[in-house]
Order: sequence, then structure tokens, then C-alpha cells
Amino acid sequence: MSSSRVTVLGLGPMGRALAGAFLGAGVRTTVWNRTPGREGDLAERGAVLAASAEEAVAASPLTVICLVDYDATDAVLRQPAVTDALKGRTVVNLSADVPERARDTGRWAAEHGVGYLDGAIMTPTPTIGTPAGVFLHSGPEPLYGEHRAVLDALGGTHTHLGEDIGRAAAYDVALLDIFWTSMTGYVHALALARAEGITARELAPFAQGIGAILPPLFQEWAEDVDGGSYSGEGSRLTSALSTLVHVVHAAEAHGVDASVMRAAEALARRAVDRGHGADGFTRVTQVMERG
Amino acid sequence: MSSSRVTVLGLGPMGRALAGAFLGAGVRTTVWNRTPGREGDLAERGAVLAASAEEAVAASPLTVICLVDYDATDAVLRQPAVTDALKGRTVVNLSADVPERARDTGRWAAEHGVGYLDGAIMTPTPTIGTPAGVFLHSGPEPLYGEHRAVLDALGGTHTHLGEDIGRAAAYDVALLDIFWTSMTGYVHALALARAEGITARELAPFAQGIGAILPPLFQEWAEDVDGGSYSGEGSRLTSALSTLVHVVHAAEAHGVDASVMRAAEALARRAVDRGHGADGFTRVTQVMERG
Ligand SMILES: NC(=O)c1ccc[n+]([C@@H]2O[C@H](COP(=O)([O-])OP(=O)(O)OC[C@H]3O[C@@H](n4cnc5c(N)ncnc54)[C@H](OP(=O)(O)O)[C@@H]3O)[C@@H](O)[C@H]2O)c1
Ligand SMILES: NC(=O)c1ccc[n+]([C@@H]2O[C@H](COP(=O)([O-])OP(=O)(O)OC[C@H]3O[C@@H](n4cnc5c(N)ncnc54)[C@H](OP(=O)(O)O)[C@@H]3O)[C@@H](O)[C@H]2O)c1
Repeated sequence: MSSSRVTVLGLGPMGRALAGAFLGAGVRTTVWNRTPGREGDLAERGAVLAASAEEAVAASPLTVICLVDYDATDAVLRQPAVTDALKGRTVVNLSADVPERARDTGRWAAEHGVGYLDGAIMTPTPTIGTPAGVFLHSGPEPLYGEHRAVLDALGGTHTHLGEDIGRAAAYDVALLDIFWTSMTGYVHALALARAEGITARELAPFAQGIGAILPPLFQEWAEDVDGGSYSGEGSRLTSALSTLVHVVHAAEAHGVDASVMRAAEALARRAVDRGHGADGFTRVTQVMERG
Repeated sequence: MSSSRVTVLGLGPMGRALAGAFLGAGVRTTVWNRTPGREGDLAERGAVLAASAEEAVAASPLTVICLVDYDATDAVLRQPAVTDALKGRTVVNLSADVPERARDTGRWAAEHGVGYLDGAIMTPTPTIGTPAGVFLHSGPEPLYGEHRAVLDALGGTHTHLGEDIGRAAAYDVALLDIFWTSMTGYVHALALARAEGITARELAPFAQGIGAILPPLFQEWAEDVDGGSYSGEGSRLTSALSTLVHVVHAAEAHGVDASVMRAAEALARRAVDRGHGADGFTRVTQVMERG
């Protein structure tokens, strides 16, 4: 890996973690961030600080960009000087956004002779450079093959999901949907627990138990949905609806906002009102899809 | 266990699982359900079918009741004939509802000379009778000690949370909040993925990966919230907000309802608007608590 070079654009928490992992793997790493001074200890660890984005991308055959979204990556990559410097080089965009923005960036890259791969990071910053990191990629297979060794320096699991450049973003947005909805439920549960005199640390071990039952249910529900069975055998939608109502009542009795659970309740109620009360909660996918 | 006796009121999916586990452990089990014919193979397995709720509770020193909610348990337990038959006996209520309903049932039980313990089941039906089951209990410690051996026949882990009869329900409602909010996010992600041409089975392994990162984050965020740090060091609220917006846009671009994520987005935006953008997502608890 000692002859490899990479440029990292963006030094938010994730960009810093990526650059740190590259340095840790012995990849010669050039970094740049819009706002200077965000590099932490990366320079001491051997990173080259570029004075501009165009200088940064010119330093390496491969640029990894990790900014808040694609408005931000457009603002950097589509500056004429940066686009010129990228000609004949490759960009891997590990920022998160909707699939359409990834496809649009793919078109821009093709028009300007820039190699383009899109990707997504599914795990938090401490996992970067460790076996626990999870990375998704999509775009031209040969280009992925060409840069795979450098990407592997980030550690973890890398999955190439296909040639459709929007594929990684499509998985990403669905997976972030699970992650952030769950975390919204978690912070709400902490507020509700606190109102009942239960500290977050007291609740946490049991919350971890809830976390542990999710993965096997994800698999079971996936088979149920793909198979179109929407089975209520183990637990009925009416039972779930009654629980959603309890959460709303318990929260609002303490003046804790319950807007998220109220929205979930309305969807479940619609499914019950349509005669699906004896089905499973998976039936709610149809209400979400068809209104 | 062969000299023990228990009554199970309610033969929904969970009631049937509880009765089956008691039978499997050699406990003499009497069952009753409002609607007859819901006992499946329990009679063949040795369960005694009672003709009425009062006959059922008279058959055992301990009655476990597991109905949809406390409106239902009130409708059964507070019938005069049933209340009379319960005098000097004990009820463990494993139905889910809000803490106030558990406390109200505790008062009713005390007034009528009925021993009362409240509980909650945190795992799905297939875990009942296995080491994977998780049960929470609250109420008088001596009463719990007296019936603990029979309850242990259900397998799994039993935790007594304290003498406050509402404590198990308080944990339950907070934990169900996490569970059902997460599952709502999951079924939404399945709808969003399907709109992008990704099957539930294709998404599931990665969804399981998201499930796996939740438990350690639950612990980390609990310490953050109890400590009042609301730290954005690893990931900022502005970054999360941008992701919530992506999920809303990606869903609505496909005509998939995004009301749950829109509610989460509104809460996160309020925290950012109040100047907490550089904090972590945990800061949203305060918006939930204080409006
Ligand atoms: N943090 C995590 O745990 C995590 C996990 C998985 C995926 N991700 C994804 O990784 C990406 C980066 O996340 P992050 O946590 O490192 O940081 P972030 O807070 O999402 O974004 C901050 C970065 O974006 C830059 N930026 C924002 N607007 C810009 C613009 N108009 N022009 C140029 N740069 C701009 C910032 O530059 P300034 O410093 O100049 O503002 C900074 O480098 C996000 O898409 C996130 O969803 C993060
Ligand atoms: N299923 C699970 O995976 C699971 C997991 C953890 C906790 N729980 C909790 O366990 C409890 C029972 O759940 P479940 O899935 O077995 O069933 P459920 O669908 O929640 O409830 C069905 C049971 O409630 C009875 N019921 C409803 N209204 C009644 C009334 N007014 N009077 C008398 N009985 C009434 C039903 O009797 P009929 O047959 O006559 O309608 C049936 O026995 C719930 O509180 C649930 O939250 C369930």
C-alpha cells in the first residue's frame, strides 16, 4: 500500500476518520476542507494539507469525498478548476444523499471525463479502519476493481451493489431510514423514561435487549413482505396499534411530544380500518405505498 | 414443578405461548379465553379448559393474565364473580398498557384482597419457554418471591424492577416505544427500497447490520443524555437533519408516505433552529420534553 495515494475532501467527523484510516494503512494522503483548521492531528500523522480543492485532487489518482450532502459535493467538484484537475482521475463519493443526486453526479462525471463511483458508509466513525466498518459501492465494475485495494485500506466490509450508480444511495437512504427512525424512537423513549423517573442508564440494558431482537425480525419480516403474506400469526396489527396508542398516551400524559408515534399510529389505524387488523404490522407497508 | 398450578387468562398469540411454556415445564395449567376455540393444541397437551373466567381463576393460586390492554383485563377481572374468586389469590398481569393503568389495577387489587404483580414481556412469542425470553416484573417483593418458581417455568430472564407497581409498565412503554418506532422505520424502509427496485430480502442483511450497531449506540447515548453532554463529536445534529430530509425526499419522490420521518425532521429542525446544530442528535430529547 506504500505506493498508493489518495485525496480526502471533507474533514467532518467522517472525513477525518477516513483520512486517519488511510494514513494508518500507509496510504499517502492529501486532505482538504472548505473551512481550514479542521484537520485535527492528521498533519502530524503525515497527511499533506492542500491549499485548495484543485490542488488536493491533483495530488492523487483517487479522490474520496465525504461532505454533508450532494449540494456540498457539487459546490466543490463542479468548480471549473476542480473539474479540470479531475479529468482522467477517479472520485468516490461517500457522502449521503438521495439516489437521484448520485445518478446526476454520474452524468456530470461522464460528461467531464471523470471516473465516478458512488458509495455509502453504514457505520459510525469509530468503526472506520476496523473490521466493523460497512461500505457500500456502486458504479462501473472495472473502475471499482481498479481502486478496490486503496478502498480496502479503510478496513471493514465493502460490497459492490451493481453498475447502477444510484444503487448504493438507494440502499443507503433505506438503511438510514431504519437507523434514524430507530434512533428517534430511542431518544423519545429516553424522554418518556425520564418522565417516569427512569434514567437513561437504567433503561439502556433493556433497550439493548430490544436492539438484539430486531435483526432476526428484520429477516422474518423481509420474507413475509416479499412473499406477500403479511402474517399476523405471531402478533396482530390490532395488538400493535393498541401499543402505539399506549406510547402516545404515556408520553402526552407527561407533556412529552408524541408526534412521531402519532404519525405511526395513524398509518397503523388506516390499515386496521381497511380490514387488516388480523394481519401483521408489515401490512402497513401498503398504506405507506398507496396512501 | 409438578405440584404447581397456574391459570392463564387470554389465548391470543402470547397467551397461547405462555400456556404452552407452562405445560412444557410440567405446571398444571388451566386456560380461558373470552372467545372460545382459541386454545389450539393446548387441550391435547394437557391444559384444562375452564368454562368461565371465575372457574379458571378458582383452579389455581396464581393467575397470569395476558390480554390486549387493561380495558380488557378490567372487563375480565372486575366482574364481581371473578373478583370474588380471586380473593386470597394472586394475579400477574402480563398485558401491556400505560403505567397509570397498572397503578390503578394495583389499587383495585388491594381493595379486594387480591395479590397483585404487574409485568411485561419484552420478546416475541417464539422466545417464550426458551432462554431468550425477557420478562419484567414489579410489585410487592414477597409476593414476587412466592410465585417466582412458577414464573421461572416460562424460561428466560426475569427482572424485578421494584415495589412501585407501575415500574414494569413504565419500562415496557419506553421499550415498546423503541421497538415499534424501529419497526415502523423498517417497514417504511422496505416500502422505499421496493420503490427503488430493491427487494426486502436484498435489503435485509444490511438492515441486520444496522440492527447490530444500535445496542452499543444505545449505551453510548444513554451516558451522553444522563451526563447532559449532548455531544456532537462523532456526528452532528445538522448532519442527521440533512439525512432525515433525504429520507423524506426519497420517499415522497416515489409517492411513499413520509409522515413519520417528517415528524422526526420537524423535531430535529427545531433543535437546530435553537442553536444546537453542532450538538448530537440526543439534543432532540429536550425538544421532545419541552416542546
Ligand atoms: N459521522 C458519522 O458517523 C457518519 C456515518 C455514516 C455516514 N456519514 C456520512 O458522511 C458524510 C459526512 O459526515 P460527517 O459526519 O463527516 O460531516 P457532516 O457534518 O455531515 O458534514 C460536514 C462536512 O461537510 C462540509 N460541507 C458542508 N457544506 C459544504 C459546502 N457547501 N461546501 C464544501 N463543504 C461543505 C463541511 O465543511 P466545513 O467544515 O467547511 O463546514 C464538513 O467537511 C455525511 O453525508 C454523513 O451522512 C457520517
Ligand atoms: N404477541 C407478541 O409477540 C407479544 C410480545 C410481547 C408482549 N405482548 C403483549 O401481550 C399481550 C397479549 O398479546 P397477544 O399478541 O397475545 O394478543 P392481542 O392481540 O394483543 O390480544 C388478544 C387477546 O385479548 C383478548 N381480549 C381483547 N379484548 C378483550 C376483552 N374486552 N375482554 C376479554 N378479552 C379480550 C382477546 O380475546 P378474544 O380472543 O376473545 O378476542 C385475546 O385473548 C398484549 O398486551 C401484547 O402487547 C405480545
